[in-house]
Amino acid sequence: MDTTKQRPSLSAKFIAELEEVFSSDTLFFHPEEIEKFSRDQTEDLVFPPEVVVKPNTVEEVSRLMQCCNRHGVPVTPVAARTGLSGGALCVNGGVALSMERFNRILSIDENNGQVLTEPAVITQVLMEECAKKGWYYAPDPASRGSCSIGGNIAENSGGPRAVKYGVTKDFVLNLEVVLPSGKVIWTGANTLKNATGYNLTQLMVGSEGTLGVMTKAVLKLLPLPKHNLLMLVPFSSAEKACEAVSAIFKAGITPSALEFMERDAIIHTLQYVPDVQLPVGPDVQAHLLVEVDGNHLEILMKDCELITEVLTQFDCGEILFAEDNAQKNQLWKLRRKAGEAVKAHSVYKEEDTVVPRYELPRLLKGVKVIGKKYGFRSVCYGHAGDGNLHVNILKDDLSDEEWTSQLPEAIREIFELTVSLGGTLSGEHGIGWVQKNYMDIAFPHLQIELMHSIKAIFDPNNILNPGKIFPDKVTV
Amino acid sequence: MDTTKQRPSLSAKFIAELEEVFSSDTLFFHPEEIEKFSRDQTEDLVFPPEVVVKPNTVEEVSRLMQCCNRHGVPVTPVAARTGLSGGALCVNGGVALSMERFNRILSIDENNGQVLTEPAVITQVLMEECAKKGWYYAPDPASRGSCSIGGNIAENSGGPRAVKYGVTKDFVLNLEVVLPSGKVIWTGANTLKNATGYNLTQLMVGSEGTLGVMTKAVLKLLPLPKHNLLMLVPFSSAEKACEAVSAIFKAGITPSALEFMERDAIIHTLQYVPDVQLPVGPDVQAHLLVEVDGNHLEILMKDCELITEVLTQFDCGEILFAEDNAQKNQLWKLRRKAGEAVKAHSVYKEEDTVVPRYELPRLLKGVKVIGKKYGFRSVCYGHAGDGNLHVNILKDDLSDEEWTSQLPEAIREIFELTVSLGGTLSGEHGIGWVQKNYMDIAFPHLQIELMHSIKAIFDPNNILNPGKIFPDKVTV
Repeated sequence: MDTTKQRPSLSAKFIAELEEVFSSDTLFFHPEEIEKFSRDQTEDLVFPPEVVVKPNTVEEVSRLMQCCNRHGVPVTPVAARTGLSGGALCVNGGVALSMERFNRILSIDENNGQVLTEPAVITQVLMEECAKKGWYYAPDPASRGSCSIGGNIAENSGGPRAVKYGVTKDFVLNLEVVLPSGKVIWTGANTLKNATGYNLTQLMVGSEGTLGVMTKAVLKLLPLPKHNLLMLVPFSSAEKACEAVSAIFKAGITPSALEFMERDAIIHTLQYVPDVQLPVGPDVQAHLLVEVDGNHLEILMKDCELITEVLTQFDCGEILFAEDNAQKNQLWKLRRKAGEAVKAHSVYKEEDTVVPRYELPRLLKGVKVIGKKYGFRSVCYGHAGDGNLHVNILKDDLSDEEWTSQLPEAIREIFELTVSLGGTLSGEHGIGWVQKNYMDIAFPHLQIELMHSIKAIFDPNNILNPGKIFPDKVTV
Repeated sequence: MDTTKQRPSLSAKFIAELEEVFSSDTLFFHPEEIEKFSRDQTEDLVFPPEVVVKPNTVEEVSRLMQCCNRHGVPVTPVAARTGLSGGALCVNGGVALSMERFNRILSIDENNGQVLTEPAVITQVLMEECAKKGWYYAPDPASRGSCSIGGNIAENSGGPRAVKYGVTKDFVLNLEVVLPSGKVIWTGANTLKNATGYNLTQLMVGSEGTLGVMTKAVLKLLPLPKHNLLMLVPFSSAEKACEAVSAIFKAGITPSALEFMERDAIIHTLQYVPDVQLPVGPDVQAHLLVEVDGNHLEILMKDCELITEVLTQFDCGEILFAEDNAQKNQLWKLRRKAGEAVKAHSVYKEEDTVVPRYELPRLLKGVKVIGKKYGFRSVCYGHAGDGNLHVNILKDDLSDEEWTSQLPEAIREIFELTVSLGGTLSGEHGIGWVQKNYMDIAFPHLQIELMHSIKAIFDPNNILNPGKIFPDKVTV
């Protein structure tokens, strides 16, 4: 689907100003670059910017913002383009502000357990650099090998370890941000506690690049856990698998990961990553992937025994314990590649539903009922310990007509169910472009108005990532 | 010090409206009630309200807000009056909105590990009720026996366990809030993850009752750790004690509490709580109180061994291991009563400084240097693991003249030092009334302006807890 529309192009005066401020290796008009920045990982959406700017310094970001603000030109901050909600799509054309040159870890402060980083550092690189020094940066989205810290902060990303360690927001202490006016602020302090005025840091986290452009982040680190154990658990009922999730916590254990994959997710992924082998019997309807971590192996073994006891009460099949790192990597690959595998299989639409964890079986069941009603197949997997279920609705053999006419209504029903269970639209992918017209399900108009007024404080001319988060009818 | 000023009293029309809406057991004009609500625990400050309102329902809170908003009457939400920054002082007279009747735990959801509570529930009561069911609500300020959850959320309170489990903000999932307009909103969803629009929940946490009145809170619970061990460690140098703190984390251990008390804090507290006995040798300059918790006692013993090894490298004295719960309670009493003990000893001014934890020795040393310069004695204690040092400046035998003329300048120097070390004004007590004119040290004008504009969105008529957080020159 190409949703590109004809847009008024940038004025000659604006371009002349850009060329005055930026050298030619910072400004890109070439079709190849434009094409590259017209997509992220959100479905098959394409929105080309009119120019790509790759600033080298905070000052250059500031000057770009001043210039765009003066001319009312839309700016979309772009990180690693791995987003799934269209947060980095240039839906109004204008400037794609690529932060790719802000790619350095500036310092790992071992005395305080903090890292000062630029936003374009790849999450896995940051994790590995910290781990070399014995420190743990925990939030690791499935895409950690390709996503960036800046994008993670913008979307408040989660990942498998969030269930024990929290999401990105729980690790962000302080941010350097360039406002749409071009002014540069730090949002807080480099401290673990802070009760000094309103929490601008947490306002910025998850704001999807609509309030300011992050140029530096101070992140909290934890002592690196020394060991982990991983087990893959088959179930003959997907709902039983979901029910088992709450019971593990009730038994007093907080796993470091507690992932759910239904049968089709496993099957598609096994086809997509042929180097991973796993026999999946005909009666297996779902798997849980359970990890525990800590400093003492003997305790982790005991935890696994207790978890096994709990799971057995929910009719699980034979549990596979990963024997070594190679096998752990294989099992994690199976989980981490699920998204790509589903995408490779069919045109699809993903919803990032999240509910209180005990409601997961009800959500899963409801999604299937809605699917039947509208004639869609869905493939579900996600972070069961957090109640975060990624619902992938597949086009499969449906006609374009069936797909486009019925889909929004089906999604609306899924979200209404999610919210009725105490949940909300997005757990970790953000609202961005593709979920914005469902925001009324999560929030009455008043909350959206409050958010919109906050947007107007930071960005009175609505130049920064316009068209995101807010439903069309509220957007300026 | 009585800072009461002559204020224009409430109009007869406003009072008539109140009396129309509220029954006589909800409105209090009696001097005894007025006197009671004229103070919290902040120094010796006294600001009487003109009327105390104790609503029974969310609807009554809403009607009160509508009435005050219409008449431009200031409303100060009051919780348990244990605050230390003057957040609950009625500095502009008007209405004291006591939330004391919102004192029920509405449900403990064991399936999801969440509690739905009203704001006036005493923190320790909430902790104990959850613990009975095997769940842990971790944030426990020193005043946990008398402070309330609502006040904790308003000030983003911390306490000893924050070092491992986080502060109040890390446990708040969703809030029901009455806005100054009288409209009622929920800020988020009852989920562990949420990437759905701006984080209104985190904007409300720590906003010190200036943006809305909380009427319900959904809080996250953790599985209750089964065991803990506690050790009290003397040092002949307060700075060495502070240096040891970072080393414990670098050794890979995150204690569940890591508290610092300098000599005078211990001495004053031992005088104040005579039932606690502790020999303090003449060479002891400070103590660390170190707690570890978890589900496996043998592991905690190992952790204590490792901690002991680390501490020995910093010339600690003989370590006292608490032998049983009675002794643990005694040692905790020593720490928890430090604030009251200092207050009982002298007129004082407390600053809630916080720095990255490795900077603690520098902060402590600097505070003493500043004290010498201005002729003040200070008594310091706090949550060393978080770099959160409570600096109590004592009046002792200083004249009123010396005290009032020099104090603000000395405090300014302490805060400037704090911020220069990467820290900020308040870790867990809030800015409230007494720190507001130091906000310029933590934030340039622009950040304060942003915060102030946010305030204006929620409270355009500036009726809700006016005069707090913002420096005098910015306040509307």
